[in-house]
Amino acid sequence: MMTGKPAVVLLSGGLDSATVLAIARADGYTPYALSFRYGQRHSVELDAASRVADALGAAKHVVADIDLRVFGGSALTSDIAVPHHERVEELAADIPVTYVPARNTIFLSFALAWAETLESSDVFIGVNALDYSGYPDCRPEYVRAYEQMANLATKAGVEGRQHLRIHTPLIELTKAQIIQRGLTLGVDYSLTHSCYDPDPAGRACGTCDSCLLRRRGFAEVGLQDPALIPAPGLAG
Amino acid sequence: MMTGKPAVVLLSGGLDSATVLAIARADGYTPYALSFRYGQRHSVELDAASRVADALGAAKHVVADIDLRVFGGSALTSDIAVPHHERVEELAADIPVTYVPARNTIFLSFALAWAETLESSDVFIGVNALDYSGYPDCRPEYVRAYEQMANLATKAGVEGRQHLRIHTPLIELTKAQIIQRGLTLGVDYSLTHSCYDPDPAGRACGTCDSCLLRRRGFAEVGLQDPALIPAPGLAG
Repeated sequence: MMTGKPAVVLLSGGLDSATVLAIARADGYTPYALSFRYGQRHSVELDAASRVADALGAAKHVVADIDLRVFGGSALTSDIAVPHHERVEELAADIPVTYVPARNTIFLSFALAWAETLESSDVFIGVNALDYSGYPDCRPEYVRAYEQMANLATKAGVEGRQHLRIHTPLIELTKAQIIQRGLTLGVDYSLTHSCYDPDPAGRACGTCDSCLLRRRGFAEVGLQDPALIPAPGLAG
Repeated sequence: MMTGKPAVVLLSGGLDSATVLAIARADGYTPYALSFRYGQRHSVELDAASRVADALGAAKHVVADIDLRVFGGSALTSDIAVPHHERVEELAADIPVTYVPARNTIFLSFALAWAETLESSDVFIGVNALDYSGYPDCRPEYVRAYEQMANLATKAGVEGRQHLRIHTPLIELTKAQIIQRGLTLGVDYSLTHSCYDPDPAGRACGTCDSCLLRRRGFAEVGLQDPALIPAPGLAG
């Protein structure tokens, strides 16, 4: 039985958000996991989110439907090719084509709506300013500005009953530190999925930006990425 | 032919947003109208948005699907009864049950995504701080905080190429002043729909908060609300 304060946790099904869900629980919150079906090409992400929510004991897992394809503009939601690299050093320094316009802003807005409905003042998001792959909406200054806006947007904020806080426990961690923290909390990373370009069977490609950053993180803690081991055991 | 800078205009199909669309055009922008199917009970709103977008010459009208019902929490998206009153003085001073959690925050986030895709730095929204019916996310301080956050969220903002501006041309106007401005710009208010609780044929009830505010506005300029005249002429 969970009796902690409710918190909304944004859950993509990837390594980072799985770790965040485990941290929210370890911090004593009752996590409500929120994922999105946003016109992405791979439902394998949502399957992973569902496995992770179950394995880490979310009180509820909601998948909200939003369709960003009506606007176009990104490899994750339209038909621009995902870039592949052999080595992490080849990652482009500028913002990658896998950028989705306003994605975190939209995701946080839904989290805000659910938090208000739950009378929760806590939202968790796995943004990371180090391995952030060039997304502007993963930086601390963005998150603080969002929090400030959110506290002017809601009944609870205006009435002074609640101060909404956006928790970003990974924001200053390297991928290796995130993995270490998650392993300590019992996260089974074989359940997670981070790849931008999986094969038809849902297996990670190993060479997109997201796979390369994971691989390097696991290598730094002396492990192999379980998502890149052929035929991973999915038993949670 | 429209050659103005593109601007995203949030269009509910109501009196306020129709006026905003007319103002955006009059200010020289090419308006891209954005509406939402968000689990509201009345599709009559979207029919009105479509009529208004056509009549006022939007370059494009997109209806984005979002389903806030997954979170519950409001008369507009769940089954709490909409309150009715005979006179505007009876409106509750506190935030009404028709409040939708984080609605404007979500709507602006989608507008931001579309603006980025259009390489537009202008979003128009018909919020109003006087007749705002108690919604916290209709106040100037909220809008400024949103703008600040948005400029930290996007590629264009981070790279200093564009400063996103959220235009709120109605924010300090009374309902009567909004109507006067719209009539000057040729808005046909018989096309609009603002009612929270229309009858099965889509006709406005005349006694919900939204209808009462409209009625008073039209009365103040010496007119009858065309949405409350039986069998209104819908020819645009």
